[in-house]
Amino acid sequence: MRLSDTDRLEAFSDGVMAVVITIMAFEVRAPGAPSWSALHHTLPDLLVYVLSFTVIGIYWNNHHHLLRATERMSAAVMWANLHLLFWLSLLPFVTSWAARFPLHAVPAACYGLLGLAAALAYWVLVRSIVRANGTDSAVARAIGSDVKGNASLVLYACGAGLAALTPVVSYTCYAAVALLWFVPDRRLVRPPAPGVLPPEG
Amino acid sequence: MRLSDTDRLEAFSDGVMAVVITIMAFEVRAPGAPSWSALHHTLPDLLVYVLSFTVIGIYWNNHHHLLRATERMSAAVMWANLHLLFWLSLLPFVTSWAARFPLHAVPAACYGLLGLAAALAYWVLVRSIVRANGTDSAVARAIGSDVKGNASLVLYACGAGLAALTPVVSYTCYAAVALLWFVPDRRLVRPPAPGVLPPEG
Amino acid sequence: MRLSDTDRLEAFSDGVMAVVITIMAFEVRAPGAPSWSALHHTLPDLLVYVLSFTVIGIYWNNHHHLLRATERMSAAVMWANLHLLFWLSLLPFVTSWAARFPLHAVPAACYGLLGLAAALAYWVLVRSIVRANGTDSAVARAIGSDVKGNASLVLYACGAGLAALTPVVSYTCYAAVALLWFVPDRRLVRPPAPGVLPPEG
Amino acid sequence: MRLSDTDRLEAFSDGVMAVVITIMAFEVRAPGAPSWSALHHTLPDLLVYVLSFTVIGIYWNNHHHLLRATERMSAAVMWANLHLLFWLSLLPFVTSWAARFPLHAVPAACYGLLGLAAALAYWVLVRSIVRANGTDSAVARAIGSDVKGNASLVLYACGAGLAALTPVVSYTCYAAVALLWFVPDRRLVRPPAPGVLPPEG
Repeated sequence: MRLSDTDRLEAFSDGVMAVVITIMAFEVRAPGAPSWSALHHTLPDLLVYVLSFTVIGIYWNNHHHLLRATERMSAAVMWANLHLLFWLSLLPFVTSWAARFPLHAVPAACYGLLGLAAALAYWVLVRSIVRANGTDSAVARAIGSDVKGNASLVLYACGAGLAALTPVVSYTCYAAVALLWFVPDRRLVRPPAPGVLPPEG
Repeated sequence: MRLSDTDRLEAFSDGVMAVVITIMAFEVRAPGAPSWSALHHTLPDLLVYVLSFTVIGIYWNNHHHLLRATERMSAAVMWANLHLLFWLSLLPFVTSWAARFPLHAVPAACYGLLGLAAALAYWVLVRSIVRANGTDSAVARAIGSDVKGNASLVLYACGAGLAALTPVVSYTCYAAVALLWFVPDRRLVRPPAPGVLPPEG
Repeated sequence: MRLSDTDRLEAFSDGVMAVVITIMAFEVRAPGAPSWSALHHTLPDLLVYVLSFTVIGIYWNNHHHLLRATERMSAAVMWANLHLLFWLSLLPFVTSWAARFPLHAVPAACYGLLGLAAALAYWVLVRSIVRANGTDSAVARAIGSDVKGNASLVLYACGAGLAALTPVVSYTCYAAVALLWFVPDRRLVRPPAPGVLPPEG
Repeated sequence: MRLSDTDRLEAFSDGVMAVVITIMAFEVRAPGAPSWSALHHTLPDLLVYVLSFTVIGIYWNNHHHLLRATERMSAAVMWANLHLLFWLSLLPFVTSWAARFPLHAVPAACYGLLGLAAALAYWVLVRSIVRANGTDSAVARAIGSDVKGNASLVLYACGAGLAALTPVVSYTCYAAVALLWFVPDRRLVRPPAPGVLPPEG
């Protein structure tokens, strides 16, 4: 028995995302003293980690549903997927920078720019999948208009732009994106592709 | 051939748990001198690592048996699983803190609180799986009353609460949880779900 | 259901490559200050990371297509694959050295020598697969003459040799290899092996 | 379609071994200067890494062939496998210690003791698989007498014991074990279990 190309792609992407999560948690350095106040000082690290974990969790969830509905692969899809993984692999870098300087504008802006880049890469991946499967395919019909995706782009851009005012506004924007995507994409969950069981019971 | 949703979920969870184990072992820093006494100084690191490795081993084992018996997935199950992985991904953080200050109360208490959070997250995962598969499902009937799970919650809470007295009591409680779960959950192993081979020969 | 030997080999290789990517991204250290100029200083790190990410991305893509077309495994194929993974696993080492000394000859030369070693290891892997599958097999007929592979060897050798003059020439050679391989190997993509769906739609 | 228990076990073990390899390579620190002499100073690191990479490669290969021939799992097999992974996960720890003090007795002895522990854990795993599959099973008949395994135990014990004389003898013993196992276990490769394709062409 041989696995399909989409299984392969999913497995590799899952591997990268699993390591990204664990590397980010690993960068939350243990407090330098055995006290509650020392733990309190790692609070920015922990909060930024929660945000970044949620970002990866959302991408994993949506990526999973997207590829479930995909029937045909192409070279363009494989590169578009690697392109998305490239931006996600830089999340530990921005996360540890933002955790170290939680009240500064530039890391907060870069966090948003990375979010923007990843969201655009996801959009390119969706387009390349639709092109490979045809506009009549189950996945293409399921996509329809992408309100959440567009809202995410606007929120990341606003967060990055407003970081110069105050980073708190930026992180609020990024948390809003996370809340927005918390529920998986109904478009892909509701009408299952032929031969694919609906992921919701 | 396409993998099922539960295979996907298991693969991603296995990936995170495999990296958590290796990252924790990586944090057991090599001794600073080439002598037995220098190795002796890393003994707390090694002991806490053994405990944390056992914790992950138990979760991997039970998670595996739980998902074997699961037939239907839902969005809630996917998020409940990510929630469990979130707490497990913080284990290296608490492990390295406890290893650095093995005789102090606060890291010992935090170790127990993390264990408590992970145990509660596992309980939420079990509940969400039962909800997705129906109370008549094989997995629901197999679960029944959860004596071990409840005992674990009590032991983790006791360990965290008693850390202020002496951390040795706390770590004894956590080791007791590990011993308790060492044998995999008979409820899921004994009556196999239809179409699933019994894991024990 | 049991996975095939090639699936197993692919999964292990994917695991190593996924961790290599994430470890390299993790080595791009967060800037020491929250400013654009501090970010500017990490530019060499980021550029070398982009190059190394592309190298792994290309190997993943070609490795994937190669194993899709493979029907029979042998002990030699398994060791040839481990040999390739050995060189790829040293990429983070060379990448972080080159990132730290971007304008020096020796790290630039070593980057090329590692690329050469990995390219030779890939060539050995292809040969061992052809030997295991027979010269009449789909994979053997699909390979044919390897223009791109030979060009890569020449470019890596030139880059390593010219590093003594100026590292910029070396990195240009390595980037040329990346561009060369950007499109996956048509030989393997066009005529699919029997029972394997064409990866391109 | 659902994966079998052995596939699950293999996937988790592969994940741990893939991360162990990459973490060990990551611990080969980039030289502190951009010169050939600085690279020369990392030679002990590189040599110990080659040894440890080969150790993991051999375990991966044999573990793979062992589980291919396995038909039935048990709770004991799962714990025996985790026990093996525990010792393998400590390999980066011993590797980095030995690399830092290549000419000292204690790290060289500990390297051998870890090798001994892992070899014993592998032996326990083989026994637990034979017990789960019955002495009439394909895997039990294929095992027969374990000359190589016994030789490895003797060599690791000798290496650890002779480290007090000179570490060079120890590392020669460990390299001999690697050479011994370089060819995968003929016993498992030759007579394939029913329904499993012979891994060799």
